[in-house]
Amino acid sequence: MKVGIIGASGFTGVELIRILKNHPKVDLELLTSESFVGKKISELYPSVGLDLDMELEEFDSHDALRRCDILFLALPHGYSSELVAMAYADKKIIIDLGADFRLKKIEEYSSWYETDHKAPHLLDKAVYGLPEIHREEIKGAKIIANPGCYPTSAILALAPLLEKSLIDIKGLVIDSKSGVSGAGRRATPVTHFNSANENINPYGVIKHRHTPEIEQELSLLAGEEVSITFTPHLIPINRGMLSTCYASLLEDLEEEELRKIYEDFYKDEAFVKILPKGIWPHTKWVLGSNNCLLNFEVDKRNKRIVIASVIDNLTKGASGQAVQNMNIVLGIEETTGLASPAIYP
Amino acid sequence: MKVGIIGASGFTGVELIRILKNHPKVDLELLTSESFVGKKISELYPSVGLDLDMELEEFDSHDALRRCDILFLALPHGYSSELVAMAYADKKIIIDLGADFRLKKIEEYSSWYETDHKAPHLLDKAVYGLPEIHREEIKGAKIIANPGCYPTSAILALAPLLEKSLIDIKGLVIDSKSGVSGAGRRATPVTHFNSANENINPYGVIKHRHTPEIEQELSLLAGEEVSITFTPHLIPINRGMLSTCYASLLEDLEEEELRKIYEDFYKDEAFVKILPKGIWPHTKWVLGSNNCLLNFEVDKRNKRIVIASVIDNLTKGASGQAVQNMNIVLGIEETTGLASPAIYP
Amino acid sequence: MKVGIIGASGFTGVELIRILKNHPKVDLELLTSESFVGKKISELYPSVGLDLDMELEEFDSHDALRRCDILFLALPHGYSSELVAMAYADKKIIIDLGADFRLKKIEEYSSWYETDHKAPHLLDKAVYGLPEIHREEIKGAKIIANPGCYPTSAILALAPLLEKSLIDIKGLVIDSKSGVSGAGRRATPVTHFNSANENINPYGVIKHRHTPEIEQELSLLAGEEVSITFTPHLIPINRGMLSTCYASLLEDLEEEELRKIYEDFYKDEAFVKILPKGIWPHTKWVLGSNNCLLNFEVDKRNKRIVIASVIDNLTKGASGQAVQNMNIVLGIEETTGLASPAIYP
Amino acid sequence: MKVGIIGASGFTGVELIRILKNHPKVDLELLTSESFVGKKISELYPSVGLDLDMELEEFDSHDALRRCDILFLALPHGYSSELVAMAYADKKIIIDLGADFRLKKIEEYSSWYETDHKAPHLLDKAVYGLPEIHREEIKGAKIIANPGCYPTSAILALAPLLEKSLIDIKGLVIDSKSGVSGAGRRATPVTHFNSANENINPYGVIKHRHTPEIEQELSLLAGEEVSITFTPHLIPINRGMLSTCYASLLEDLEEEELRKIYEDFYKDEAFVKILPKGIWPHTKWVLGSNNCLLNFEVDKRNKRIVIASVIDNLTKGASGQAVQNMNIVLGIEETTGLASPAIYP
Repeated sequence: MKVGIIGASGFTGVELIRILKNHPKVDLELLTSESFVGKKISELYPSVGLDLDMELEEFDSHDALRRCDILFLALPHGYSSELVAMAYADKKIIIDLGADFRLKKIEEYSSWYETDHKAPHLLDKAVYGLPEIHREEIKGAKIIANPGCYPTSAILALAPLLEKSLIDIKGLVIDSKSGVSGAGRRATPVTHFNSANENINPYGVIKHRHTPEIEQELSLLAGEEVSITFTPHLIPINRGMLSTCYASLLEDLEEEELRKIYEDFYKDEAFVKILPKGIWPHTKWVLGSNNCLLNFEVDKRNKRIVIASVIDNLTKGASGQAVQNMNIVLGIEETTGLASPAIYP
Repeated sequence: MKVGIIGASGFTGVELIRILKNHPKVDLELLTSESFVGKKISELYPSVGLDLDMELEEFDSHDALRRCDILFLALPHGYSSELVAMAYADKKIIIDLGADFRLKKIEEYSSWYETDHKAPHLLDKAVYGLPEIHREEIKGAKIIANPGCYPTSAILALAPLLEKSLIDIKGLVIDSKSGVSGAGRRATPVTHFNSANENINPYGVIKHRHTPEIEQELSLLAGEEVSITFTPHLIPINRGMLSTCYASLLEDLEEEELRKIYEDFYKDEAFVKILPKGIWPHTKWVLGSNNCLLNFEVDKRNKRIVIASVIDNLTKGASGQAVQNMNIVLGIEETTGLASPAIYP
Repeated sequence: MKVGIIGASGFTGVELIRILKNHPKVDLELLTSESFVGKKISELYPSVGLDLDMELEEFDSHDALRRCDILFLALPHGYSSELVAMAYADKKIIIDLGADFRLKKIEEYSSWYETDHKAPHLLDKAVYGLPEIHREEIKGAKIIANPGCYPTSAILALAPLLEKSLIDIKGLVIDSKSGVSGAGRRATPVTHFNSANENINPYGVIKHRHTPEIEQELSLLAGEEVSITFTPHLIPINRGMLSTCYASLLEDLEEEELRKIYEDFYKDEAFVKILPKGIWPHTKWVLGSNNCLLNFEVDKRNKRIVIASVIDNLTKGASGQAVQNMNIVLGIEETTGLASPAIYP
Repeated sequence: MKVGIIGASGFTGVELIRILKNHPKVDLELLTSESFVGKKISELYPSVGLDLDMELEEFDSHDALRRCDILFLALPHGYSSELVAMAYADKKIIIDLGADFRLKKIEEYSSWYETDHKAPHLLDKAVYGLPEIHREEIKGAKIIANPGCYPTSAILALAPLLEKSLIDIKGLVIDSKSGVSGAGRRATPVTHFNSANENINPYGVIKHRHTPEIEQELSLLAGEEVSITFTPHLIPINRGMLSTCYASLLEDLEEEELRKIYEDFYKDEAFVKILPKGIWPHTKWVLGSNNCLLNFEVDKRNKRIVIASVIDNLTKGASGQAVQNMNIVLGIEETTGLASPAIYP
């Protein structure tokens, strides 16, 4: 199978290349870029290996569809619709790392992204690519909307509780912390080393665009409308994301019962693991891996539960999950190309 | 006035020295240490200046009381009671940076610190040294219990709302993030560079000892029992602390009204400032200063408020606040020795 | 005395403000900026304190000279000549943090900076503002060329040896490491957090513009032409600079003799200190201070000496040294406003 | 083939596990530890994957030799001799990541490591495991002395020049910078986050134990005694090492000629690459990979050459190189298990 990466010069692009370069079932065929056409990818990112002799090409949809069986789209929102429509007509597999096909309700898209959707008729063809929740649908999908990083970490943390209706769907608090790579490769005052280093700050409080995405999936799990208060923070690490989630328990559940519920929910999952009681997840335990680590504690005094989840925002939070989705669609072992342990320290 | 620092070799000790070395109204007279007796402070911390020609001495309470008018105690909990009792009898001023005199209820101390209090009769002589809340009591105090770092950041964030009974006292969530210096100078697996760097993790969830301290002060402000869910996190910065606080609003208050309430509450404070709407506090904006910066946003969809506060955990969160308390007791300008802007970047 | 900072929005600008805000002998009168005219400095840099109620103004040379007695220039090279000429005619004091007046030989300026000098007639009026070497000349100067950060660290490391002709002037190697703030506040691929963090790299090898500046001053000290091999490196810290210097000893000198030579050379200096034998300088020991710490070791096997020096690149390497120069010109205590110890940790 | 790691709980141990867990030709059979016997490796290092169900065992040489075909030794110097002797008698393959078998001259070992060697008769059986220099000898070796991290980076940087006698063997300067993981997992004042973060310092100047190892190999290449001045520095990154090397050129060689010499020397090497002219190596370009990137510049004014090399100190500088050596001994593709690109950013 031939693979193309549309928008290969960003951080999710180079992470896809890292994973796919040695993937035994696919070949990298096409890398496109807007700003670096003609440049070798190994010049832009020597990390991929000086032996990777591929140039970044200008994007041409016909050419891309002709040469590739699978397209990974790593584009800003609003840019993927036309290509997705063509690829869908062409029966190619699209894995869109952008936001355009994640929200099922077109009005939510317009309202949070402040633009009209350009291919609304395809929204119901797209599957939300969180395998632990939607694996069966992903198997037959042609358009996979790869989840955002914050949604991946938050949904995996809360899914077992909502699916069993164990928590109050009002008053959910999600306090997330992300490494700077989540802000992308563009040099801005926010991504300046001297701004981000030795610092932490909240941003996009109440307003972050991952909010409706998280609410959509949590509502699906709960079977009713879930509304969250979501606060992302920027922390001075390259990669890694932690979500600390707060919910009110509807019943007096013992820690052991809850632990069993979590264990059962994820028992067949290769990438999601519950840590032993008392061991809180560290983002660096998943660096460069596709893993998600979880743990929780019951706050009996307040009848509340605190859940923490960690992922690598560029791997399980983006490119690793995209390859996991590809593996599912191709019907091969889900961990293919994704089995390397995290790098430590 | 002659000043002694009991436990001068820790991070709060060296921060006290940094501030007091050039303080115009007091002289450093005594620095004690358990592990480094006989060593020059400038050998242990060349940062204080090679010209500071003071040796760390063994602690002797009689000697300390004879030589000093003011004693700063930077000791682990459980170690200060005897000295405080003697100093109180001797009419000296004690500013205790440890936890022994912060909790008013002796049973809370025993339960959270898992040890008996050794000077319970002095608890009601001690004043909780958060000047913005207790300035009048501090003025005449002899024993000042200097607040913990997490409590300082959380109480300053929530005080205006609780004092005006604007939020539900149930369901308060405080999600705090601290630089590694909060864990002290001892080399442990937790403070190892390779553990802490490029990492974030929660710790002490539900169980952290600053919980009852925060609840005591919030309850005082609210006039009823407040119970919180408190999660501290370790982040890879040297100094700095951010608390993100979540509360349910009891009424539909406009952002402007709330802003006025905050502005009014802190209008005469030199060290606490509300940032303009939309500008979220960054810890690095207070690095090395005694300042606390605040901001908030109303989550109308969930009738909730999110408040964020930042301090330098070693300055306003410890040694700077201790000097602020000293200035108040001495009746001098409260900002003396504390007027330097934050260092940036 | 009224002070103006021309180019106040960069990192050396905000460092000048940090130091001068509480300086007892001068008042901040004027802050100019090209990109942020009309913005409050406390909005751009909340670190300076929300109480600092000054706006960034457009630069106007007549207005600047009318309002200010002393001008600090923090401009890119090539931009200061006209203003310096006017100020000189007006008998104002100019402290230029840029490179335009550092090199005495006009052809070196043209060749290394690849542009013609716009005020060559003023070159011999300017004094190279390294107080430890040129204090007497600085006292009466009107134009002070404040040294670059690399030159400050390198010259202070090597001066005692060259002044006594103890080392071979051929084959000097200066291997320097700088924090990212040395690259300025502009957001570029180089200053992107994800490029600089968890990384070290050399840059500008052989070609860095501080080379002729170092050679000029070392040659003056040696009394003959010194030529160096200079390699700067970028390291992932906000502030701080280390220069490791390598030289061949002309005689078999004992470590104690050399130590005495260094001690003597700097014996009256407030800001330059030799560490005890075996204690190598750490950049963080000078963070936010105007100090330079030095040490060395003799490599007897190779008859060579290794000298290491640390400074804060924004303080002794730029703005602190500029204020030190101002204090000298004003005839006040040289440490005024600069006495604070380094912040640690 | 069954593999054992003796001393698996350190950083080189966990890095070996990361690489070997998915190695197609060997199975992890034994992990030993002194301090963590009975603990699961995935508890100590959750990064290896919660699915890795191996316990750390007490070391027993007979048991180790019975169960394993290949032993990786990650022990402090002085601890491996007995085991190596037994293994050698038993015809097992030993790859020693420690220092005991690197130096060929027993008196150099005694003098630099300040202890007697316990198995001097095996020194000439051991091969210095730098494949790019000693591949042929490694093929048939039973005892492989895996090089130190500093020597790997320095020797690879200088080998092409010394082998062709292009540089003066007097006056070589090697200025190296290492991430903190090089100091190991033990919590000490040096590895404390607050000491190492936002800091750089030289250490072990003139005296570092990697000096004789570098000199031995450079002398072998040169055919005469080479003596270096070597200064290691600690920098605030987890992994990564840069060596900046300075040498005097014996002839006026053009940059292109030198480039050809470097290219030729490494033309068949999978892991060593020369960057294009003007692109200086960044340590983060090799993070987690077994690669070494090089570049150089000629300083014509001083007839000198500056060469910079980067490696990941735990991969090419330790465990990756150890696996590369194992692959060579086993006669399998040298890149097996080591083909993953560096992780970026």
